[in-house]
Amino acid sequence: MSNSVRVVNIRDCAIGGAELMVMAGPCSIESREQIFHCAEVVAASGGRFLRGGAFKVRTSPTAFQGLGWDGWKLLREAADAHGLLTVSEILGEEQIEPARRYVDFAQIGSRNMQNVPLLRALGRSRMPVLLKRGFGCTIDEWLHAAEYVTGEGNEHVVLCERGIRTFETATRFTLDVAAVAIAKARLGLPVVVDPSHAAGQREWVECLTLSGVACGADGLLIETHPDPARALSDGPQAVVLKELPALVEKARRVAQALGRTVAAGARQPVAAA
Amino acid sequence: MSNSVRVVNIRDCAIGGAELMVMAGPCSIESREQIFHCAEVVAASGGRFLRGGAFKVRTSPTAFQGLGWDGWKLLREAADAHGLLTVSEILGEEQIEPARRYVDFAQIGSRNMQNVPLLRALGRSRMPVLLKRGFGCTIDEWLHAAEYVTGEGNEHVVLCERGIRTFETATRFTLDVAAVAIAKARLGLPVVVDPSHAAGQREWVECLTLSGVACGADGLLIETHPDPARALSDGPQAVVLKELPALVEKARRVAQALGRTVAAGARQPVAAA
Amino acid sequence: MSNSVRVVNIRDCAIGGAELMVMAGPCSIESREQIFHCAEVVAASGGRFLRGGAFKVRTSPTAFQGLGWDGWKLLREAADAHGLLTVSEILGEEQIEPARRYVDFAQIGSRNMQNVPLLRALGRSRMPVLLKRGFGCTIDEWLHAAEYVTGEGNEHVVLCERGIRTFETATRFTLDVAAVAIAKARLGLPVVVDPSHAAGQREWVECLTLSGVACGADGLLIETHPDPARALSDGPQAVVLKELPALVEKARRVAQALGRTVAAGARQPVAAA
Amino acid sequence: MSNSVRVVNIRDCAIGGAELMVMAGPCSIESREQIFHCAEVVAASGGRFLRGGAFKVRTSPTAFQGLGWDGWKLLREAADAHGLLTVSEILGEEQIEPARRYVDFAQIGSRNMQNVPLLRALGRSRMPVLLKRGFGCTIDEWLHAAEYVTGEGNEHVVLCERGIRTFETATRFTLDVAAVAIAKARLGLPVVVDPSHAAGQREWVECLTLSGVACGADGLLIETHPDPARALSDGPQAVVLKELPALVEKARRVAQALGRTVAAGARQPVAAA
Repeated sequence: MSNSVRVVNIRDCAIGGAELMVMAGPCSIESREQIFHCAEVVAASGGRFLRGGAFKVRTSPTAFQGLGWDGWKLLREAADAHGLLTVSEILGEEQIEPARRYVDFAQIGSRNMQNVPLLRALGRSRMPVLLKRGFGCTIDEWLHAAEYVTGEGNEHVVLCERGIRTFETATRFTLDVAAVAIAKARLGLPVVVDPSHAAGQREWVECLTLSGVACGADGLLIETHPDPARALSDGPQAVVLKELPALVEKARRVAQALGRTVAAGARQPVAAA
Repeated sequence: MSNSVRVVNIRDCAIGGAELMVMAGPCSIESREQIFHCAEVVAASGGRFLRGGAFKVRTSPTAFQGLGWDGWKLLREAADAHGLLTVSEILGEEQIEPARRYVDFAQIGSRNMQNVPLLRALGRSRMPVLLKRGFGCTIDEWLHAAEYVTGEGNEHVVLCERGIRTFETATRFTLDVAAVAIAKARLGLPVVVDPSHAAGQREWVECLTLSGVACGADGLLIETHPDPARALSDGPQAVVLKELPALVEKARRVAQALGRTVAAGARQPVAAA
Repeated sequence: MSNSVRVVNIRDCAIGGAELMVMAGPCSIESREQIFHCAEVVAASGGRFLRGGAFKVRTSPTAFQGLGWDGWKLLREAADAHGLLTVSEILGEEQIEPARRYVDFAQIGSRNMQNVPLLRALGRSRMPVLLKRGFGCTIDEWLHAAEYVTGEGNEHVVLCERGIRTFETATRFTLDVAAVAIAKARLGLPVVVDPSHAAGQREWVECLTLSGVACGADGLLIETHPDPARALSDGPQAVVLKELPALVEKARRVAQALGRTVAAGARQPVAAA
Repeated sequence: MSNSVRVVNIRDCAIGGAELMVMAGPCSIESREQIFHCAEVVAASGGRFLRGGAFKVRTSPTAFQGLGWDGWKLLREAADAHGLLTVSEILGEEQIEPARRYVDFAQIGSRNMQNVPLLRALGRSRMPVLLKRGFGCTIDEWLHAAEYVTGEGNEHVVLCERGIRTFETATRFTLDVAAVAIAKARLGLPVVVDPSHAAGQREWVECLTLSGVACGADGLLIETHPDPARALSDGPQAVVLKELPALVEKARRVAQALGRTVAAGARQPVAAA
């Protein structure tokens, strides 16, 4: 199915081709040491993107809200040091322009999937956009949200399935694996899977990762942390950093069984564009 | 239960007291004739607020997106002419200040319930806020969203239950009537019910309206249109304008059975504050 | 809407007419004292049916499974002593014939809504059937389940909305109030509302009861217990028995506001048919 | 994870070991020609079980209800002729004893997951049981249902994840892939995945099949039909029979990537036990 999908190029990374892109890192950027450690292991595992949140939308106003601009600077430095690109959530229109220095791939979070002014602004910006599915939204609504971005002339849109809200509480959300194939078929855009938010507990991240690859995902967005017990946000669902390489290796084998690949090992640091 | 709820005063209207507030009008403001006609009937029915959307967040970018500022001007004029206050959705932070002239009660739509920058900006603005529940969000998340507004020092928050997304497709959403009582009990804020979006078809608006009153709603937000078949948005769920008085009369009787009231008939036009 | 509904007569009680039927009692029949106490208060409140489970379908095999035949005998005695009819769940085809002595109104539980052999057997039996909606089933599936009963020539079918499973966990289930009106309109059968299972906690039973009446319910099925803290099943959702009269009185006032009634006070014990 | 699962042996087939069991066949047995054709292709693809319904629980009483006993006879003959075992749904307690001649693996359908008398009767029968998850039931409820069977001393229980009901309508149900790993971990029983009922359309059966294998399924239950357009039930979701071998081959490759296998090609017909 992937052959009918438009490939989205971000610098030298192609999303939607034969190679699945691994995007990993912490939920929140917390410190220089933490993000550099993550970057090192992500790169060594074959990852191409370093993820990390600097401006967090938390359900509760009293929860940790992120390091803000300082976080993005650290993200950029850590990624550059290890030849990675960056993916991070953008919360508002006013962040777009300054974000360009720090963020290669602008994530629209699940809670903002239908924030039309933000969708349109990112459409006008031409930044590559990773559009997470709203956890209460149908596939059709998700595709319409993508059209708000593409309708402004920005074709660099990648979708991200991250689980929907159902009655089942054993996981945080229910990963809708069929949505990966359906979204690719209906809109012809690459689809990345986020197993972490769906699982809610790291114990189930592996099976969801592999299911995501099996259903045709073009990439994986995985939360990882050197010491999840001390994470400032979403610790329970973060894969322990030292276990990331083995997880990516399993994903690689499933991808290969289906005629695709995941990059193996780190490459040379990329120069800034 | 209403006696433990903080009363929110908007000009001379008190939400959360013995009198239920009826807020009615079209989904979208479409023309001077339409909105004035609505205002007349809403006022004559005992309504206190004229609702109407000027900036519409539609699922699809090709759907009608509203009249914008011209719409708000018409809304203001029509409301003033009939002694009504206005309630309308605000989509972005930059609309808040200019909206003050036109909008008395700033609605945060279901899709924006977790748009934290918008919640905070409205919190700082001190405008009275009508916070719709996200259709995929739990009561707890809704209450946390309200805390983003109140946390900025704005206590003028009213909640609006408008139905959640479930597997049932006979209605557009499933009105969660228990959520009205639970939200009032847990947060002590008034709760308004929107039967129109839950129903999705006008045939079921009446039973949801009356259920909303019975479960303790402090107000009703009802879509109505002089000629729903020609409405530019959400026509199928709009109550036919001429049937609004009878619907409000039924709601009044249920309210009275429970020791509350709904205003009867129009009052004198209010002077601008 | 109720005027287009087929009235189902059970002995001298008519369900679907102007008078709402109150059916109340414990989740499980536990002792002679408990069920007689319930019967006395139910009758004094204006109730017409005594509910009580003798054969319980519990989620876990280690939970209390009911008193069985001894329970039904107690139910019959208590009901007869106070002029009430009985409603109780029937689990299997082989229980139908012996149940006739004890059960006037055969309840099909939510978990059995699509147990086709049971539906057909009750259809052939001509016993009046109270068909609860499956908590994971659509209105359409519920109506089809009713057709399995009526298709065997048994027109004595009453539906019961008891809440559906959604992502919201503040209540045990989400009462789908619109389903009451929709089911009545589409199938022309009376619909009873069970606020207890939807609420899951007695705190929310009142608001769901009143919402049920407001949306057109033809009856109420309410769990009550003299001492809920000691109940062997579903104690948290049982209304305290001594508070039942006040709850029914509120329901009566809402019913009257809509042109219907709820019987007031006990009548003479009925002689066995 | 599979190494901690109890292996369930059905004749010479072991479910829960390194080899995934493919179980395929039509939704309903319709004719000798149809079921023999299916058996031939299922066996040639490496399948070990022939599935087919003889007594159908249909949502509507006017839909095709199956060939009954004649269907089971045909199922037995076709399976024996091709060295396959049989799996078929049992609707009631009275079918269990006579079913032993025809059915090797007794399926409890999704709608009967909480039919306690049936669960207990199958527990007492010692027949191997394939327990489908109720589409509205949580993982916990599913595990409790299994305990009703094992509590009677029958340890031959295999679970089947077949999708849950959610708000998404692009597929018939949402396959809960995490539930496979969770159920295995919590109860130590093998879990089979049914991609067909989840998909609802054959277009999405492949991705769900592969996702099921990737998340650790111990078997696959796939609907297939020689001519789905003419199927008497569930035609839209049936894989075209001639495409079954290629689908199983893909599943085999994913299984092998994860250190497991799927049998390749037919084996000698088994003699009756």
